[in-house]
Amino acid sequence: MEKSIGIGLLGAGTVGGALVRRLVGESDAIAAKTGLTFDVRKIGVNQLDRERDFVVTEGLLTDDPFEVVNDPTVDLVVEVMGGKDPAGDLILAALEAGKPVVSANKELIASRGPELIAAAERAGVPFLFEAAVGGGIPIIRPLSETLAGERLDRVLGIVNGTTNYILTQMADEGATYAAALSQAQDLGYAETDPAADVSGADAAAKAAILASLAFGTWVGVEDVYMEGIEELTAVDMSFAAQFGYTVKLVAVCERTDEGVSARVHPAMIPDEHPLASIRGATNAVFIEGPSIGSLLFAGPGAGGDPTATAVLGDVIDAARETLAGAQVTPRIRFASTDIVPFTAVATRWYVRLQVNDQPGVLAQIAAGFGDAGVSIRSVWQEGVDDEAALIVVTHRAPESAQRAALASLKVIREVIEVASVIRVLEDDT
Amino acid sequence: MEKSIGIGLLGAGTVGGALVRRLVGESDAIAAKTGLTFDVRKIGVNQLDRERDFVVTEGLLTDDPFEVVNDPTVDLVVEVMGGKDPAGDLILAALEAGKPVVSANKELIASRGPELIAAAERAGVPFLFEAAVGGGIPIIRPLSETLAGERLDRVLGIVNGTTNYILTQMADEGATYAAALSQAQDLGYAETDPAADVSGADAAAKAAILASLAFGTWVGVEDVYMEGIEELTAVDMSFAAQFGYTVKLVAVCERTDEGVSARVHPAMIPDEHPLASIRGATNAVFIEGPSIGSLLFAGPGAGGDPTATAVLGDVIDAARETLAGAQVTPRIRFASTDIVPFTAVATRWYVRLQVNDQPGVLAQIAAGFGDAGVSIRSVWQEGVDDEAALIVVTHRAPESAQRAALASLKVIREVIEVASVIRVLEDDT
Repeated sequence: MEKSIGIGLLGAGTVGGALVRRLVGESDAIAAKTGLTFDVRKIGVNQLDRERDFVVTEGLLTDDPFEVVNDPTVDLVVEVMGGKDPAGDLILAALEAGKPVVSANKELIASRGPELIAAAERAGVPFLFEAAVGGGIPIIRPLSETLAGERLDRVLGIVNGTTNYILTQMADEGATYAAALSQAQDLGYAETDPAADVSGADAAAKAAILASLAFGTWVGVEDVYMEGIEELTAVDMSFAAQFGYTVKLVAVCERTDEGVSARVHPAMIPDEHPLASIRGATNAVFIEGPSIGSLLFAGPGAGGDPTATAVLGDVIDAARETLAGAQVTPRIRFASTDIVPFTAVATRWYVRLQVNDQPGVLAQIAAGFGDAGVSIRSVWQEGVDDEAALIVVTHRAPESAQRAALASLKVIREVIEVASVIRVLEDDT
Repeated sequence: MEKSIGIGLLGAGTVGGALVRRLVGESDAIAAKTGLTFDVRKIGVNQLDRERDFVVTEGLLTDDPFEVVNDPTVDLVVEVMGGKDPAGDLILAALEAGKPVVSANKELIASRGPELIAAAERAGVPFLFEAAVGGGIPIIRPLSETLAGERLDRVLGIVNGTTNYILTQMADEGATYAAALSQAQDLGYAETDPAADVSGADAAAKAAILASLAFGTWVGVEDVYMEGIEELTAVDMSFAAQFGYTVKLVAVCERTDEGVSARVHPAMIPDEHPLASIRGATNAVFIEGPSIGSLLFAGPGAGGDPTATAVLGDVIDAARETLAGAQVTPRIRFASTDIVPFTAVATRWYVRLQVNDQPGVLAQIAAGFGDAGVSIRSVWQEGVDDEAALIVVTHRAPESAQRAALASLKVIREVIEVASVIRVLEDDT
């Protein structure tokens, strides 16, 4: 019988509960497969965790989370409470006490990652966070280990299941954003307050982590440009489909000669791209590099059980390294690379305008783009009475140029409205 | 400047050459991202490696591979020579000398895995083989680490790019097997002697490794049932498409209440399954578990550059663990689980018969299946003159029952020929 590893758990919500059930209920299977046995020694709970669906001795529970970290019988701390505070200070305290930490906290890592990683390095213990991005999809470990020797060019991700569910409904059923959101809420795919998901904030934290690991340079959440799905209309979803695209909320992490960048926004993706077929609440990450070509990872991006699987994998890995008596070094280091401001990032735009159907309108619009240095790739017009919907798809141009063009369109007298702007993700120029 | 890690390379073919180019040409980028520097100290070459496309000092080369392993300046051994001998003895010697080993050798690992893993455990050094399955797709590490705490039910893989390329050509262009093979050879996707690929042997070695890691019980290549693609016809590809299926050579690793099993054979996959859309030389692995739901990994399954990326990831990982001074324990342990013999594995069959179009034929055929305990799910008949093509798709039944039914069909007088049998991979019964 090998020594049992004492687990201290911070947070006992959906993921924490699922983890406890696995550590307790599947301990024999875990021991057989890994040679490790775990013992849950302390669980920090708050009022939200009162309706627990797992059973443990009442004495294991505490409402003081620092008691979990400081408990001398706790060898390894698992943080699944979420939020920046007090999770950050708890993790720091655990690391400083020489305890390995496993966290699923994207928000915290995207804002205080380097500080926590440095603390882990000083202590020589693992700090792992596979579950922070992509839920149950193994993506952190492949990026930071298997692909450590690859100079990656781009990482694209559908990393928020709520918005992908909403967009799938809008595309399939022609539903409005409001109707699809309401349905997602009814089915439990969206929170009562959906802001963190639909604004892109959740995806932006994940984009920051993906970019940091992919490019080996720290990209904080404040460096990530972010645009949500609230403005998307059924009309644009329908035009996208007509032109052979699917609209997705995408995290785009790119490395160019100028530096690295990360952004989250709705994007039209060609139907034949692997990400276009990722439906419902599924998440996916698409990785491109000069040697590897492209890789696709897809699976459940959220949910207690899949996320607990990722957390458990980290717990096993951290325990194995710790028992080996290693002075653990971080799996990735951050060099300093320029971060390209979003205004300098080149993208293609789809712009839908409502115009008075008069001779000369198109020429004025074309001049607006041209004067700003933006080339037009295609134009499509559909007239209804005296008004026309005019759709312009541009070639790639820096955000600043696209915005200048947009501003010039808005002052053309025959332009009734710039109804929508959606970026187009395509590999040509 | 940290201590440089001395690499000894066994084999300098496509993968070895790509690896040397990366270790030399990208050493700064690797050091920035990982904090590690590598130095290629010895390369074992054979006559096949004479046309090297990388340049090193002549003094680094030796035609005695044991010189690589025994070189005191070699800290870590990379084996990319392939084949069981002498690779196995070289790896054992390296591990026994306390040197970490990275290997891409599926054939060797599928036959001597437990022995090599045990030797690594005794020596307390890493033995990693991410590149052995799925080329550049990270799959070994996710299976053995991220998913270590999951009791996986099934792993499906398209793990041989040559056969998937051939099958894609047959499906898309109605090509015969011979024509598609010839085209694959012209384009360099298939070897002049394609036996190892088209017979399923390459996929079977990978299936053995996938099953062993997924289920935590050793499954050797001799335990894997294997059937190749040589008998597939354009006619059956066309029927498959008509019924909504795509034919793929699939590695199927399953765990049931009876135990675990692994097999490789052509299978009809429903068009809507993620594996059905994996085209050309791309590889993919689809993993199912009770908590994780399903995961898809897809990417380049072969080629020097992608495979070198996977090898390099292992090299970095092994070096990091070794520098940490750890007494490394294996990432996975093998418990003893029953291996279900293939005759007891239940599958669905598609059977195409050529029959004389006489009254009563169908009744006799149905009786043949029924007497063997196999239920028929659907029958489809297409008559040409006095002959008819009769297609029977069965419900799930053990291989032994299916074979008994097949034997009884062959003695029915009106059955001219049992033209083909293809298993159907579908989740219903």
